[in-house]
Amino acid sequence: MNTFGRLFRVNIFGESHGESVGVNIDGCPAGLSLPLEDFLPDLERRKGGMQKGTTPRKEDDLPIFKSGLFNQVSTGSPITILFENNNTRSGDYEKQRAVPRPGHADFVAHTKFGGFEDYRGGGPFSARLTVGLVAAGVIAKKLLGGVRITSSILEIGGEADLDKGLQKAIDAKDSIGGIVECRVGGLPIGLGEPFWDSVESVLAHAVFAIPAVRGVEFGTGFAAARMFGSEHNDAIEDMQGHTRTNHAGGVVGGLTNGNELVFRIAIKPTSSTPKEQRTLNWETGQQEAFSVKGRHDLCVALRAPVILEAVTAIVLADLWLLEQRIPRVVK
Amino acid sequence: MNTFGRLFRVNIFGESHGESVGVNIDGCPAGLSLPLEDFLPDLERRKGGMQKGTTPRKEDDLPIFKSGLFNQVSTGSPITILFENNNTRSGDYEKQRAVPRPGHADFVAHTKFGGFEDYRGGGPFSARLTVGLVAAGVIAKKLLGGVRITSSILEIGGEADLDKGLQKAIDAKDSIGGIVECRVGGLPIGLGEPFWDSVESVLAHAVFAIPAVRGVEFGTGFAAARMFGSEHNDAIEDMQGHTRTNHAGGVVGGLTNGNELVFRIAIKPTSSTPKEQRTLNWETGQQEAFSVKGRHDLCVALRAPVILEAVTAIVLADLWLLEQRIPRVVK
Amino acid sequence: MNTFGRLFRVNIFGESHGESVGVNIDGCPAGLSLPLEDFLPDLERRKGGMQKGTTPRKEDDLPIFKSGLFNQVSTGSPITILFENNNTRSGDYEKQRAVPRPGHADFVAHTKFGGFEDYRGGGPFSARLTVGLVAAGVIAKKLLGGVRITSSILEIGGEADLDKGLQKAIDAKDSIGGIVECRVGGLPIGLGEPFWDSVESVLAHAVFAIPAVRGVEFGTGFAAARMFGSEHNDAIEDMQGHTRTNHAGGVVGGLTNGNELVFRIAIKPTSSTPKEQRTLNWETGQQEAFSVKGRHDLCVALRAPVILEAVTAIVLADLWLLEQRIPRVVK
Amino acid sequence: MNTFGRLFRVNIFGESHGESVGVNIDGCPAGLSLPLEDFLPDLERRKGGMQKGTTPRKEDDLPIFKSGLFNQVSTGSPITILFENNNTRSGDYEKQRAVPRPGHADFVAHTKFGGFEDYRGGGPFSARLTVGLVAAGVIAKKLLGGVRITSSILEIGGEADLDKGLQKAIDAKDSIGGIVECRVGGLPIGLGEPFWDSVESVLAHAVFAIPAVRGVEFGTGFAAARMFGSEHNDAIEDMQGHTRTNHAGGVVGGLTNGNELVFRIAIKPTSSTPKEQRTLNWETGQQEAFSVKGRHDLCVALRAPVILEAVTAIVLADLWLLEQRIPRVVK
Repeated sequence: MNTFGRLFRVNIFGESHGESVGVNIDGCPAGLSLPLEDFLPDLERRKGGMQKGTTPRKEDDLPIFKSGLFNQVSTGSPITILFENNNTRSGDYEKQRAVPRPGHADFVAHTKFGGFEDYRGGGPFSARLTVGLVAAGVIAKKLLGGVRITSSILEIGGEADLDKGLQKAIDAKDSIGGIVECRVGGLPIGLGEPFWDSVESVLAHAVFAIPAVRGVEFGTGFAAARMFGSEHNDAIEDMQGHTRTNHAGGVVGGLTNGNELVFRIAIKPTSSTPKEQRTLNWETGQQEAFSVKGRHDLCVALRAPVILEAVTAIVLADLWLLEQRIPRVVK
Repeated sequence: MNTFGRLFRVNIFGESHGESVGVNIDGCPAGLSLPLEDFLPDLERRKGGMQKGTTPRKEDDLPIFKSGLFNQVSTGSPITILFENNNTRSGDYEKQRAVPRPGHADFVAHTKFGGFEDYRGGGPFSARLTVGLVAAGVIAKKLLGGVRITSSILEIGGEADLDKGLQKAIDAKDSIGGIVECRVGGLPIGLGEPFWDSVESVLAHAVFAIPAVRGVEFGTGFAAARMFGSEHNDAIEDMQGHTRTNHAGGVVGGLTNGNELVFRIAIKPTSSTPKEQRTLNWETGQQEAFSVKGRHDLCVALRAPVILEAVTAIVLADLWLLEQRIPRVVK
Repeated sequence: MNTFGRLFRVNIFGESHGESVGVNIDGCPAGLSLPLEDFLPDLERRKGGMQKGTTPRKEDDLPIFKSGLFNQVSTGSPITILFENNNTRSGDYEKQRAVPRPGHADFVAHTKFGGFEDYRGGGPFSARLTVGLVAAGVIAKKLLGGVRITSSILEIGGEADLDKGLQKAIDAKDSIGGIVECRVGGLPIGLGEPFWDSVESVLAHAVFAIPAVRGVEFGTGFAAARMFGSEHNDAIEDMQGHTRTNHAGGVVGGLTNGNELVFRIAIKPTSSTPKEQRTLNWETGQQEAFSVKGRHDLCVALRAPVILEAVTAIVLADLWLLEQRIPRVVK
Repeated sequence: MNTFGRLFRVNIFGESHGESVGVNIDGCPAGLSLPLEDFLPDLERRKGGMQKGTTPRKEDDLPIFKSGLFNQVSTGSPITILFENNNTRSGDYEKQRAVPRPGHADFVAHTKFGGFEDYRGGGPFSARLTVGLVAAGVIAKKLLGGVRITSSILEIGGEADLDKGLQKAIDAKDSIGGIVECRVGGLPIGLGEPFWDSVESVLAHAVFAIPAVRGVEFGTGFAAARMFGSEHNDAIEDMQGHTRTNHAGGVVGGLTNGNELVFRIAIKPTSSTPKEQRTLNWETGQQEAFSVKGRHDLCVALRAPVILEAVTAIVLADLWLLEQRIPRVVK
């Protein structure tokens, strides 16, 4: 469904070429200062317009506040933020209606929604919807105060030198994937809720809502499967729970343990590649050659850090509100 | 929290050395035949008692049905199943109270619950609770009818020859991790709910509730981050959505696409290793040597396949009930 | 919180004098035809502008569709509808800031939200927000197809002759309350979910979200407390569950029973009365005389029928989707 | 569904003549002392065995704690409590299988659950399940500390002299209804959550889960529909929000206002009356005479006070935990 969270609830809506996309945030405490200018840096990071490898579709991405703020301060009521879709060229898509794009949701959406889906530009499956996520992330980050969330690209196409990775894709006239890491400092011990809502569970849930994510791992992650227990265990060193090593990535037993939270996501290559491919034409029932015409990112991983930070902040804001209720422990 | 699912809701409860562990399943349709003997094979697989590398703790693991069945058939009311804890030796744990075991939840649980947690054998953080998962999984599998869920170990300690991997741990007097894969055939197209409840999201959420899981990846997973788009995209071949390659692992746009669902999880080495380690003593505030005395698995990955199948079945039963409601599409 | 429903989820947002009010509906099936003109009759009924006794505040109340529709048909994605607030005179309220209006939420909202609430015209507590309810109700009614929901005023100020009741208030220069009934025909047997989500439970939950509602009763309601069992029981007459009497109001054991669903709500007199009253001034800490200046309904019960129908339709659409999923019963 | 609450979640399960009935409480903070003897007074009140007019079915109603307590103190993990069903005579019901009892859920349950329902003694629809409610209520009351919840019978069969009301039923060889009131003192200002989760909404939701409840009203309730606004409004007198009159019953704008919370419920006459009635035989498709044989209460309202207190405490514990989270307001 389109809402995530228990106390800090984020509802994402809209379509790539519809009237608008947006977000409704229910459960934000009152009294949080939220001037327009606080939203602009992260929204700008998401656009990624300067970088080679990102789409030339240009949108203003100016947040339009429709409810929940009064004199630029949160009121405790649900905050609705819209982003207009101005720069749409739906003609690009309509003629391709019967030809589901490889790697995209076109075919499954058509089947699930009986042909009534808004197919233009991927409709609600478009990465365009992440603009609302980023806006919600700005609010969550402010709510989390001293918590520091930073995300960065570890590799593009297997290259730690990102330019080199991108150039590989440009030379091949193809799109390319990447790996993005997120690190969070300043978290208290004990965030997360057994049995089902471990920190890993809720973060992974939210992270897989980001289009193109194909894997997530915490701390040492998949490499842990090849380790001995005595290597992997992080010995606790002091009463604050600090450990010298951090194989656990800051989560033990599904709860934050006072160390840096560290996790990584794998992002697949953009499904829209300039390369010619084959796909089905569901009118003819035959495969045919297909070639992308729209405007697309060469590498969606380039825009991912700010989106990953936003999703992480949204999840942690919710866990933090859950933990802060008094009394967690009756005295 | 302790309940997962929207329509097929699974509530896990209990502690390792408490009175009992169990599960309450709310939302199971009426009329499902659930004789005792249908539960035994998966419960037996979970015990893994014959295998080298699994704990010698012996429990009967006989399901005790407390509600929701009438003449061994589901009634549409919540199904409560208990498993008694008989084979507990809490003395093993009480004297270690002030010495949180490395890699375990002892320290974080103590902090979160203010010292009131049931610390014996990890309390509610113990893998003992997965017995309820397996029972719920049996019900979910029956509900899913023609859907085929199979899970298997891909490697132990980096070795595809599992005996070799285990022997490495035995020789090192240490515990060891592994990788487990799950494959699901026979799913309809379109399971999953945008925006937040993609198939990957809800599966990852549930999978990370299994103790010791450190990563999850779908289809080509982390390797996709090094691929070109033209390589990774699976070309649709027919009106049923079949593809020759399956890099997507059966999920596109967060929805099942009619191909086999494929994902893998990384399982860390058992935190309880026979090797001597260092940890904090929170009474003295000093680190000290620590050595595990209890009965523990050398490699928890050995028991993981049936648990992973159960969790997968629980998630898919819920998505399937969500999808089957009429009208998904108004005629 | 601001969202109601499990499968048909209605999220209400906005403030009386903010940018806009609106509704987001998540879970509406695809393929439902929703042209603008289908919304107008119920929105017009809510305005109640022609009637004596309703507020002269005039708003266009034209729904602005922001997401979820494509060619005026639902797509299966969340539907966002905004209503602009044009006709606001916030100056009316700002000077009264320190003087909480008797019977209104001013004082409690101020306490709960620490002074950050949008106090203008009651902010999010205003009956203005019911415009979004009515729009959601139109969608729910269409979804319910053959189900007939009709609501009417039974009495105003104790008078079945409504004009007489209103005149009483006009003569007294005061506001007045009333009783409204809702009847629903065409429901299947078995809507409602034990234990907690009886039809009465979920209807009452939703109905008490309508401002000014003070009581709800089903079938014979409070009068049932004075009856004998042999009088109150409705004898089943045929295989469709029909009964000659309908003391149960169409609900037995929390489930619809195939007869007409009947319930009534009590609506208090409008809190804003032309009469002078006393209230606290929280700056001076003293009581003072208070007299309402804004534009207000003499009797909010006059607008209630269409709102009550909307809320009823929203609840029943959700229960109906819950019931229609296959298999409710495994074959 | 069978779970209620956002942070303090109460899951009710079991059947009248099944193995057991019980309750699972998820979200209770750690550190709450819960010795067995604290449960006994309310469980005893619910049995009502001494009173004329209550069923002679005798159950021990001793709570059996299965999880969530350690040394009689809550651990922060889900608390499971079972009550065994010993005193069942299912033969009473089996021969009546095809003859749905008037006023009971037999017919609707049979239709909804396709004949797979546990029909013995009403199965999951039985008032037997309220024993779990009462146990959860004990925990909620303790959690609420200084809050005082008291419930009492206002009238039986229209008589404030309760013995007189009961005697009326005994003389008529019939069952009888009643009205029960609940009063809560010591609540903070501001409990309740707009838009949908007003105090009235969540209380009414929970209250209508109690079998036989047919109406609920707050403060002046239905009588408010006949009042003028100037009469009904309660003037605020001091900075704590106190009012001299309490027509609002302690709730304004859906939020508690610092005054006593007051509401009443209407309870229908017990459906099982000694009087001969008519009902359908669904094997013959004909109406036939019907006469109750089982053991039943003459007036279920007699047992209602402790159940109503329990439900009220459950709801308020949840709202209170929601309100206590920091920061409700950001400083």
